[in-house]
Amino acid sequence: MSDNRLNNEQLNKRIPPWETKITEIKKDEIRIHGYRVDELMGNKSFGDMVFLMLKGELPSINEGKMMDIMLVSCIDHGVTPPSALAALTSASTGAPYNGALAAGILSINEHHGGAIENSMRMLMELQVILDKSKDSGRNFSEAVKLLITRYKDLNRKLPGFGHRIHKNDPRTAKLIDFAHEYDLADTWVRLLTGLNEGVQKSVGKELPINVDGAIAALLLELGIAPELANSFFIMARVPGLVVHIHEEKTLQKPMRRIDPVNHIYTGEAARGIEDYS
Amino acid sequence: MSDNRLNNEQLNKRIPPWETKITEIKKDEIRIHGYRVDELMGNKSFGDMVFLMLKGELPSINEGKMMDIMLVSCIDHGVTPPSALAALTSASTGAPYNGALAAGILSINEHHGGAIENSMRMLMELQVILDKSKDSGRNFSEAVKLLITRYKDLNRKLPGFGHRIHKNDPRTAKLIDFAHEYDLADTWVRLLTGLNEGVQKSVGKELPINVDGAIAALLLELGIAPELANSFFIMARVPGLVVHIHEEKTLQKPMRRIDPVNHIYTGEAARGIEDYS
Amino acid sequence: MSDNRLNNEQLNKRIPPWETKITEIKKDEIRIHGYRVDELMGNKSFGDMVFLMLKGELPSINEGKMMDIMLVSCIDHGVTPPSALAALTSASTGAPYNGALAAGILSINEHHGGAIENSMRMLMELQVILDKSKDSGRNFSEAVKLLITRYKDLNRKLPGFGHRIHKNDPRTAKLIDFAHEYDLADTWVRLLTGLNEGVQKSVGKELPINVDGAIAALLLELGIAPELANSFFIMARVPGLVVHIHEEKTLQKPMRRIDPVNHIYTGEAARGIEDYS
Amino acid sequence: MSDNRLNNEQLNKRIPPWETKITEIKKDEIRIHGYRVDELMGNKSFGDMVFLMLKGELPSINEGKMMDIMLVSCIDHGVTPPSALAALTSASTGAPYNGALAAGILSINEHHGGAIENSMRMLMELQVILDKSKDSGRNFSEAVKLLITRYKDLNRKLPGFGHRIHKNDPRTAKLIDFAHEYDLADTWVRLLTGLNEGVQKSVGKELPINVDGAIAALLLELGIAPELANSFFIMARVPGLVVHIHEEKTLQKPMRRIDPVNHIYTGEAARGIEDYS
Repeated sequence: MSDNRLNNEQLNKRIPPWETKITEIKKDEIRIHGYRVDELMGNKSFGDMVFLMLKGELPSINEGKMMDIMLVSCIDHGVTPPSALAALTSASTGAPYNGALAAGILSINEHHGGAIENSMRMLMELQVILDKSKDSGRNFSEAVKLLITRYKDLNRKLPGFGHRIHKNDPRTAKLIDFAHEYDLADTWVRLLTGLNEGVQKSVGKELPINVDGAIAALLLELGIAPELANSFFIMARVPGLVVHIHEEKTLQKPMRRIDPVNHIYTGEAARGIEDYS
Repeated sequence: MSDNRLNNEQLNKRIPPWETKITEIKKDEIRIHGYRVDELMGNKSFGDMVFLMLKGELPSINEGKMMDIMLVSCIDHGVTPPSALAALTSASTGAPYNGALAAGILSINEHHGGAIENSMRMLMELQVILDKSKDSGRNFSEAVKLLITRYKDLNRKLPGFGHRIHKNDPRTAKLIDFAHEYDLADTWVRLLTGLNEGVQKSVGKELPINVDGAIAALLLELGIAPELANSFFIMARVPGLVVHIHEEKTLQKPMRRIDPVNHIYTGEAARGIEDYS
Repeated sequence: MSDNRLNNEQLNKRIPPWETKITEIKKDEIRIHGYRVDELMGNKSFGDMVFLMLKGELPSINEGKMMDIMLVSCIDHGVTPPSALAALTSASTGAPYNGALAAGILSINEHHGGAIENSMRMLMELQVILDKSKDSGRNFSEAVKLLITRYKDLNRKLPGFGHRIHKNDPRTAKLIDFAHEYDLADTWVRLLTGLNEGVQKSVGKELPINVDGAIAALLLELGIAPELANSFFIMARVPGLVVHIHEEKTLQKPMRRIDPVNHIYTGEAARGIEDYS
Repeated sequence: MSDNRLNNEQLNKRIPPWETKITEIKKDEIRIHGYRVDELMGNKSFGDMVFLMLKGELPSINEGKMMDIMLVSCIDHGVTPPSALAALTSASTGAPYNGALAAGILSINEHHGGAIENSMRMLMELQVILDKSKDSGRNFSEAVKLLITRYKDLNRKLPGFGHRIHKNDPRTAKLIDFAHEYDLADTWVRLLTGLNEGVQKSVGKELPINVDGAIAALLLELGIAPELANSFFIMARVPGLVVHIHEEKTLQKPMRRIDPVNHIYTGEAARGIEDYS
């Protein structure tokens, strides 16, 4: 009979513990990046907290508000995104909520949700081109052309532009307006809007900034690393996925065939927030 | 060669579309339960939106604040919960962020996170006992005893009480304080605190309400269905899981052996929010 | 700064190791339920090994063959099962193979794949009814009627009967034929076929045994626990899911809308094994 | 109220069905790559079927045997691989079998299981170096040196060599022996063993071929695409993961802390296949 149990010597060797810098748990005390969670509760919004988690520091008031607004903007987009369809398909077979949710999250990748990260990297590439352009006398418009050519040559779509449903995504303008209002529209928003003009000229047709593009610029303004962008989108979308799963489990027949397009909205009629109070 | 393509007759049969009541997507217009998402952005917090998603209606100001606070309270609990350990284990093999996150979410079940739902059902059971007690003259204390006996007979722990680390979980008191401050502490908070007293007497030792128990009572106060409780916890915990995955991927060696206990916090020293500004 | 590192005393407390009874790993030696894996290789088929894993003992020659045949019977059923559709949906967004596969596996539950377990439990229930019928003089036909009535009263379909595509599933007859050939058709196959006759009479129309029903009876003949049935189905189906994911990733456009029905098979024409050599 | 239902014109546009080349489903007929599944059952082993799924053609007798042996070789490796630990962690919280299995599969990536694909790519790179060496007069030994230098320069370990537990993995020799016996050891096995000698000389210490390396060479011999290697490993490992999940769910306490090393094997004592009959 073999025995993998560790003797004291082996255990001593293991004593060097592994390190974490995020949350400190002591008896009756929980601190996130040094702040007591019970002090954060009621003082900081969930948007503030997402900023704190991603950056290790609390946001300014405006940064926190911007974060919350970005989360709200992505909370749901109906039943047709692949993440919703995969979650519904799983739920329809009788999966528990977290199983169906995992199936949904596993469908948020490069081609759905992932445009945010790609868009961030594209903006960073444009910035590099601009930095290198200083000596050569290349102007902004020429830098944009160079970037567009690179993407064309690689047969890649420009991430952050265009949408299969929306022409002027209502979320985009709102996000950029708030960025200006909150004094957060600096380098990256300028690059994005400048790029947009270049794209219109170059492509010859309207190819407006989509919500992914706007969020890409804003995450860069807030100093978030591009590799966290997809996860940021997931944080925002989980509530949406959960309620679609709930609807499937409570209102639909098991194992139905889920057509990816042919559905109808039968919920609340259009209303304004002012209608509520 | 077989052909599953549908002819017109078959396609016509399919025309009845399936229904959804959550989000309406039209060209350049996104409405969640009737409200334009671009109007919600900046007007409503992420906590408000989670309430809207789960209930179909916007919360009152206090309900929205309570929701946000509950989300903040659960955002992270360090590296030792099974959801964090499963996510780290997956990340350590080179999983992408959403893959490791899915592994974490698949580890939030009855015995971790699930106590919220069980605690909600326990409070509902106590309510039923009380309703039935009106005629029989059974008082509150006797009803609590009956409930405790039932759980003992089934060899079940009382969900929502006790914690493997905390004795007086700092989140619990804060949540209940806010419930009172926001005028949201009614039937269910009363049942929970009453049950708590009964438990102390019956068990003979301190077995304080934990954060799951407090959230259970508050979700009931807000009218959320128990089957959504686990998903609510997941919504709150995703940012925590994401940053633990990020830390693993950026600071640790691949395929390391992850001891579930023997770690050390080496992040920011203790600080107060007032230190920040 | 808090420190969760364990001191020697604490580590000693942990020395009691946890137990596993499946596989023993020593330097240069791997034993599964006591057998050296390198001795098993070439001597035992994958079907034999699945039996060994599930039961802890090697199968007889016939049991091993039966296992392998059952695995083959379930290896794929085209693109329309929910598990395939969820896997394709995930793959279509750019998921890695294991991510898309996980989405597929998360869609194998009570209503897809799960019929095997339910069918096993139904046959066990019929056995209990028969055992109790000995004294009361209830005969087989009456016992079957009682079972059918119970399911009707609960508004449940009889698991293991009927299929949304096949009337006489070609896999069912083959499985039962092999069970007879291999001398493995005893109590449970008898119950299943007896039940089938009762069902036809009671329902008034043909409602033939499906592949789930046949596998349910055979897993019972082999002494496999019902709670392992869904996992058994997954073991068999993984290769099918993988190649559908591969096809999606290599031949289809990203983010396409995947109609759950309207597809066409364009692969190899019908051929027989004898055509191959 | 918006209406996404499709009218006939739109439905007609959709009539072009999507294509699949794997499995053809007709009423009472299931054909995999042209072969009737009920004809395959009993005639072809699960290993044969995996080959058929991955390649689109039935294997020769020896290719099918080799496939089955490779599947057997990877079926389990005890409780310490990250895939097992993640699956156990998930199971320990009360996950259903398929949820815990998905968590395990999500932990099979580049650094665990993924060495097979990397090893295949390394062997292909060596082949390219050799092809280019014909003109330059570079011999095999120099080509190997060049490859090793490249990996050193990139600070990458040579995939397919070395193991954290085994020095002479018993599976490796057996796999290569069978490859010779079955006349399947050609280019790639020769490259692997040649590389092995070069590695020993260059590294100065024994760094033997591990099971990943052997399977890499054999998958190449069988003409399997490298991007399918990780999935092949998963096909083989699913039964192992399932029974570890079963053990956790049936024998261990919920929410226990799972030490990644400190366990003990308490199953069947060592025995030989000849002991069984």
